[in-house]
Amino acid sequence: MLGLMQDWPLLCQRIIDHAAINHGERPVITRSIEGPFHRTNYAELRARALRVAQQLDRDSIKLGDRVATLAWNTWRHLESWYGILGIGAIYHTVNPRLFPEQIVWIINHAEDRVMMTDLTFVPLLEKLADKLPTIERYIVFTDAAHMPKTSLRNAIAYEEWIVGADGDFAWKEFDENTAAGMCYTSGTTGNPKGVVYSHRSNVLHTMLSLQPDAIGLSSRDTVLPIVPMFHANSWGLAFSSPMTGAALVLPGAKLDGPSVYELLDEFKVTCTGAVPTVWLLLLQYLEKTGAKLPYLERVVIGGSACPRAMIKAFEEDYGVQVFHAWGMTEMSPLGTVGSMKPQLADLKGDALLDMKQKQGYTPFGVEMKITDDAGRGVPWDGKTFGRIKVRGFAVSKGYYKLDDRILDADGFFDTGDVGTMDRYGYMQITDRSKDVIKSGGEWISSIDLENLAVGYPKVAEAAVIGVAHPKWDERPLLIIVLKEGQSATKEEILGFLEGKIASWWMPDDVAFVASIPHTATGKILKTALREQFKDHVLPTAIAAE
Amino acid sequence: MLGLMQDWPLLCQRIIDHAAINHGERPVITRSIEGPFHRTNYAELRARALRVAQQLDRDSIKLGDRVATLAWNTWRHLESWYGILGIGAIYHTVNPRLFPEQIVWIINHAEDRVMMTDLTFVPLLEKLADKLPTIERYIVFTDAAHMPKTSLRNAIAYEEWIVGADGDFAWKEFDENTAAGMCYTSGTTGNPKGVVYSHRSNVLHTMLSLQPDAIGLSSRDTVLPIVPMFHANSWGLAFSSPMTGAALVLPGAKLDGPSVYELLDEFKVTCTGAVPTVWLLLLQYLEKTGAKLPYLERVVIGGSACPRAMIKAFEEDYGVQVFHAWGMTEMSPLGTVGSMKPQLADLKGDALLDMKQKQGYTPFGVEMKITDDAGRGVPWDGKTFGRIKVRGFAVSKGYYKLDDRILDADGFFDTGDVGTMDRYGYMQITDRSKDVIKSGGEWISSIDLENLAVGYPKVAEAAVIGVAHPKWDERPLLIIVLKEGQSATKEEILGFLEGKIASWWMPDDVAFVASIPHTATGKILKTALREQFKDHVLPTAIAAE
Repeated sequence: MLGLMQDWPLLCQRIIDHAAINHGERPVITRSIEGPFHRTNYAELRARALRVAQQLDRDSIKLGDRVATLAWNTWRHLESWYGILGIGAIYHTVNPRLFPEQIVWIINHAEDRVMMTDLTFVPLLEKLADKLPTIERYIVFTDAAHMPKTSLRNAIAYEEWIVGADGDFAWKEFDENTAAGMCYTSGTTGNPKGVVYSHRSNVLHTMLSLQPDAIGLSSRDTVLPIVPMFHANSWGLAFSSPMTGAALVLPGAKLDGPSVYELLDEFKVTCTGAVPTVWLLLLQYLEKTGAKLPYLERVVIGGSACPRAMIKAFEEDYGVQVFHAWGMTEMSPLGTVGSMKPQLADLKGDALLDMKQKQGYTPFGVEMKITDDAGRGVPWDGKTFGRIKVRGFAVSKGYYKLDDRILDADGFFDTGDVGTMDRYGYMQITDRSKDVIKSGGEWISSIDLENLAVGYPKVAEAAVIGVAHPKWDERPLLIIVLKEGQSATKEEILGFLEGKIASWWMPDDVAFVASIPHTATGKILKTALREQFKDHVLPTAIAAE
Repeated sequence: MLGLMQDWPLLCQRIIDHAAINHGERPVITRSIEGPFHRTNYAELRARALRVAQQLDRDSIKLGDRVATLAWNTWRHLESWYGILGIGAIYHTVNPRLFPEQIVWIINHAEDRVMMTDLTFVPLLEKLADKLPTIERYIVFTDAAHMPKTSLRNAIAYEEWIVGADGDFAWKEFDENTAAGMCYTSGTTGNPKGVVYSHRSNVLHTMLSLQPDAIGLSSRDTVLPIVPMFHANSWGLAFSSPMTGAALVLPGAKLDGPSVYELLDEFKVTCTGAVPTVWLLLLQYLEKTGAKLPYLERVVIGGSACPRAMIKAFEEDYGVQVFHAWGMTEMSPLGTVGSMKPQLADLKGDALLDMKQKQGYTPFGVEMKITDDAGRGVPWDGKTFGRIKVRGFAVSKGYYKLDDRILDADGFFDTGDVGTMDRYGYMQITDRSKDVIKSGGEWISSIDLENLAVGYPKVAEAAVIGVAHPKWDERPLLIIVLKEGQSATKEEILGFLEGKIASWWMPDDVAFVASIPHTATGKILKTALREQFKDHVLPTAIAAE
C-alpha cells in the first residue's frame, strides 16, 4: 500500500523558485571580475536564470547535456547553474587549480558541449581549446564592453548571449534522479573520477545542511561562500542560501586576507566557509591591522584538518564560533559537522578546543561506520583508528563511465580516510588510508607525525611514508625539508619527537631532501615519495634480518 | 542521464536509528498514564521499538496492515509508532475527541487489525468493541500490574506483549512511497476522510520542519509536544525531535494549566506546541500564581487563529517568542510558520504583533497560491481574500478508498481555507471557504465578524452565516448567544460593530438564540446553522424586491 501524498519531485530549480517568491528582495552581492561590486537579488537572479535556460534551449542544449563552468563565485555563475539545471542539463564545475592536462582530460571525458568561463581563464582556455573538440561554444561571464578579442570558438559575452532571451520560459519537468551536476575528484594516482550529483541528492543535501546542528542557515543570515562553487558545490552554500533566504556575498576572484575582510565587514557577513589556507591569510591580516569581526557569528572550516591555533583565535580572540566540518566531493560534500551536542554545550577553554578539533558528527542523512581492514567496527573510544565508510542519500554509488563497484556489501562507500570515533559520536580524521603506516597490525598516522615534525623550528616541511620492514611489514620514514640555511641530524629530529608520541610510533629513519613533490591542489604527493624511497633500507630492517 | 548517487530510501525508521546512534542518551520523559514520571532515552526507545516490530511480525502483521492507536503522547505510543513503521505497517492515529460513532466508522473504514490504547480509553473501547470486527487484538499501553480486567478481545498489557521479543530483529526495507501513517479528517459534513502519509512524505516533512525558520529544533532543545500525536502527527514533533536529537517531554493525559506548567518548569522545556485553548489555560494559571517561564524560548501555536492578547502575553509578559503556524492534516501538517523575515526582524510592539498574528510563510517544500473562485491569483496586498491552495512533497493527492480528484489542473490542493497574502509573503487566514459570505462578488469573513461580535460584553458566543439575498446573492446574518442574564437589541449589537468594519460588511440582521451547535472538536457547526436559518428572510431582502 502506497501513501497518498503528492508527487513533487525534488528538483533544484524549485530552490530558486522558493527564494524568488519568499525572499525575492534578499541581496546577492558580488565582487565582480571586472572590479566593482555588483548587486542583485533572488527574484532577479531567478528571472535571469530563466533566460539562461531559454537560451540554452534555443542553442539545442538538451536533457543530460553537460555544460562546463570554469569560474569564480559570482552572480552570473550562480544564475547559470539554475538555468542549466532548469532544463535538465548538467553543470560541470571545472577546478582551475588542476594541471592544464587534467582540465583537458576531464572536459573531454565529460564531453562538455558548452564552456562558461570568467575573463580570468580566457588565456588559459585559448591555450587548451585545440584539445577540446566537444566544446561548441565559449560563453564568457562578462558584458560586451569587457569582452576581449579571443580565438575561442563561437565566443560570446554572457550578457550578449542572454540579451535575446526574454525569460518567457518554464522550467522543464523530469525525474528527480536526473543528473544535475558533475565534479571530478583528482586523486594522487590515476585519472580524475567524475562524481555525478542528481537533483534529488542536491535538494536532500541542501535540506540536510539546513538542519540547525549542521550549517543551519536562517533567512536572517548573510553568507559569504569563499569555498568555490567548483569545490564540491561550495559545500552546498549555493543551494542552501537561497533555500533559506540568506543573503549572499560572492567573493569573485579575490580570496586574499584584505579582500575577504573587506567583504566580511562591508556587508556584515554572519556566516562563511573556506579551507584553512584562506583563514590563515585573514587571521594574519587581522593581527597586522588590529581589525575585528563584529558581525561574523560562525565560520565553517573544512577541506583539511584545522590547526588548533586557528580555532582558538576565532573563538577566543574574535568571538566567532568555529564549525569544523568534514566531507568530500563524493558526499555532496557534507559528512560531519562539529557542532556541540548538549552534553558538550558547556565546555570551555582547552576541553572545548579538543572537541572543536574533531570533525564532528553526522547529520540525518549520513550514516557512518569506522572499521578495520577486515570490515569489523572498531571501538568508539576516540583512540582506535579505522577506515571511515559512509552511506546516505547524497553519497556516490559510482563514477561517470566507470564500472567499478565502489560500495561494500552493506552499501557503504569507503572514503579513503582513516579516523577515530569517540563515545559522543565525534569523528576525527587521522590520515588517508593509503598513507597510514601499518606496523605489526597497528596503524600509525603519517599526518600526526608530520604535524609534530613541522613543530621543530628548523623544519620547513615534513612527510612520513611507510617503508617495507621484514618484521613489522611497514615502519615510518620521516622525510624532512629544512628551512633555508639550517642543518640538523637524524638524532636531533627524533629527539624532538621523543616523549610526544608512543615509542612504537617513532620513525625508524629520517631522510633530508631539498624539496617534497605536491599535487596541483597543494597536497603532498606521497605516491612520488614512495616511488623515490622504494629501495630505502631502514637501519632497523637490517638489524631484524 | 541519471545521477550516480546512492539509493537511500527515505524511511521513518532511519530517524530513530539516527537518534539512537547520535543522540542515544537524550532523555524522553513522560507523565505516565499510571501517574509517575517515566524516563527513557532514544537508544532505549529504539531498542524497544525493535521489540514492537519483532512482536508485530510474529503476530503476522504485514506490510500495509493498519495498526490503530487511540492514545496520549507517551513513550510507549512513540516507540510503537517506530515499531509499526519499521515493518512497513501503518500507524493509524484515532482521535478520542471524535464522536463514538465516528471512531467506529474510521476504524472500520481503515480495517485496522490491532488497536493499541491507553488505560484511559479502555471503557470507551469496551462499549464500541462489538462494532469493530476487524480488530483482532487490543494492546493496552501499560504493564501487568496496572492491567484492568476487560472484555476486550485478546487484550494484553503492552509490557506483557513485548516481553517475549528480544529485539534481535532488523527493520524491513521497502519503497519510500510505502504508506506510513493514517489520520482521518472530520469535516462538518459527510464522512471522515483518510489522509495517508508515506515514509517519504514524513521524512521530507520532518526535514522541512527542521529548517531554521520553520520549527528549527536543535539537539540542545527540550521539546514538549502538547499537540497530540493523533492530531496531524503532533505537528511532526514526534519525528523532528529525534531527528535533531532534542530531548522530549511527553505530557500523557494531563493538559491543564498547572500540569503543563509543571512540565515546562521541572524539565526546563525550551520549545512547545499546542492549540490556543491549551495556552489560555496555561496563561490563566501563570496570571493567578505569578509564575514565570524562565526556560521556555519558543511556543508554536496552531490549529486555529491565535488571539492577539495571547501573543502579546507570551512575547511581552513572559519573554517567549510566539511562532504562529498554519496547516492541516492533509499537509502533514505544516503549511506556513510565522517566523520573521529579515525585513521584519526589527519590528517591535504593535507592528510586531500585527505580523505575528498572521500565519506566516511557506518553508521550502510547500508552494502556495491564493486565488479567486475562477482560479486567478489575487493581489498580494494583505487585504484581498482568496482560496488558499497548496502543493508540495507532504501534501495529500487523495483520500483513502476515495476516487475523488482533489487537485486542480496544476496539482494544487484547495485547503478550504480563505485568506490574504501580504507583500512579504505572509498569509493570514480569514475564513473557511464554505463559510465566507459572498456579497455581490466581494467576500466577507464570517470569522472576522464573529471575533468582533464576541468583543461585546453581553455576548457569550457569535456565529455569522450567509443568507440568500435577491440583489447581493448573500448577505451576513449575525447569530448571537447572550451571556447568562443579559438582554440586548439588534440595534445595540450592530451599533457596537459600527466603525469597526467597512459599511458593506455590516450584518443585515441579528438573530438571538439560546445555543449554537458544535462539532465533536468544538468548532461551530455552520451546516446546522445554515439549515436552521435557510428560510430566514433578511429585512434588506424584502426592501430589494
